[in-house]
Amino acid sequence: MRLTHFTDYSLRVLTYLAVKKGKQEERATIAEIAERFAISRNHLMKVVRELSRLGYLHATRGKHGGLLLRHAPADISLGGLVRDTEPDLGLVECFRDGDTCTITSACRLRPILGEALAAFLAVLDRYTLADLLGPQRDDLEQLLHLDDLPPAVEARPAS
Amino acid sequence: MRLTHFTDYSLRVLTYLAVKKGKQEERATIAEIAERFAISRNHLMKVVRELSRLGYLHATRGKHGGLLLRHAPADISLGGLVRDTEPDLGLVECFRDGDTCTITSACRLRPILGEALAAFLAVLDRYTLADLLGPQRDDLEQLLHLDDLPPAVEARPAS
Repeated sequence: MRLTHFTDYSLRVLTYLAVKKGKQEERATIAEIAERFAISRNHLMKVVRELSRLGYLHATRGKHGGLLLRHAPADISLGGLVRDTEPDLGLVECFRDGDTCTITSACRLRPILGEALAAFLAVLDRYTLADLLGPQRDDLEQLLHLDDLPPAVEARPAS
Repeated sequence: MRLTHFTDYSLRVLTYLAVKKGKQEERATIAEIAERFAISRNHLMKVVRELSRLGYLHATRGKHGGLLLRHAPADISLGGLVRDTEPDLGLVECFRDGDTCTITSACRLRPILGEALAAFLAVLDRYTLADLLGPQRDDLEQLLHLDDLPPAVEARPAS
């Protein structure tokens, strides 16, 4: 039982953007994420296009373009994300269109596996993208070579 | 997120044997199961070999040979079966050997997904093979063309 590479890479892209959020330069490029995670740009382009379509990020072109989270990390539910990015939560054939299993109409496998899947997603619904960063945010910044980026300049109140 | 065909077919083989259990002729053949579920014999041979190795069934050759459950359906945990038959419960790369994700050491994805997986399996641990049959056992017998098999002759107490 695995999640797709698509979900795995979506989580990495959003985590990267979440770690970068609050930095002076918080926009990221596909090239930069591809390099940090050693993932092919082609793969990432598809992931970014879909995350943009799903409303998780803004992707703008041009010299000052780049990728930005559309919501605060604490507002991005992991359960919602997995539901959005997994093309198929049909664990076995009787969950899916075109099911040919002889006994589906009388067998209790589907409701039982359905209950297990609901428990899986219910755990993920309790967490957000912010929880992936957790207390080790500084370590994540180091691992992603983001620890020397200055924080965003905040408007100071006049003294 | 899917379970493998191997797990799906293992569930079907064991369900078939469970429905047949208690019949006068409770042994089943691979040919018979392949025909009822329209699954290739070659696939099923691999499944049966592995279920035998794992201790779920007896497979004996010869004229009076066949497949028999080794335990009562109520003693076969669905959680245990899925753990035994899924080759890999590593949902994303950081669960698996050879993980190359840059941020595994600091990211909280693995423990969070691990908690979700544990919740999934905990539900399945509450059910057994007997629960797949449930109240619709007669319907299952019909769907599998087992409804006209006589029950096992029980030794009657002398009157």
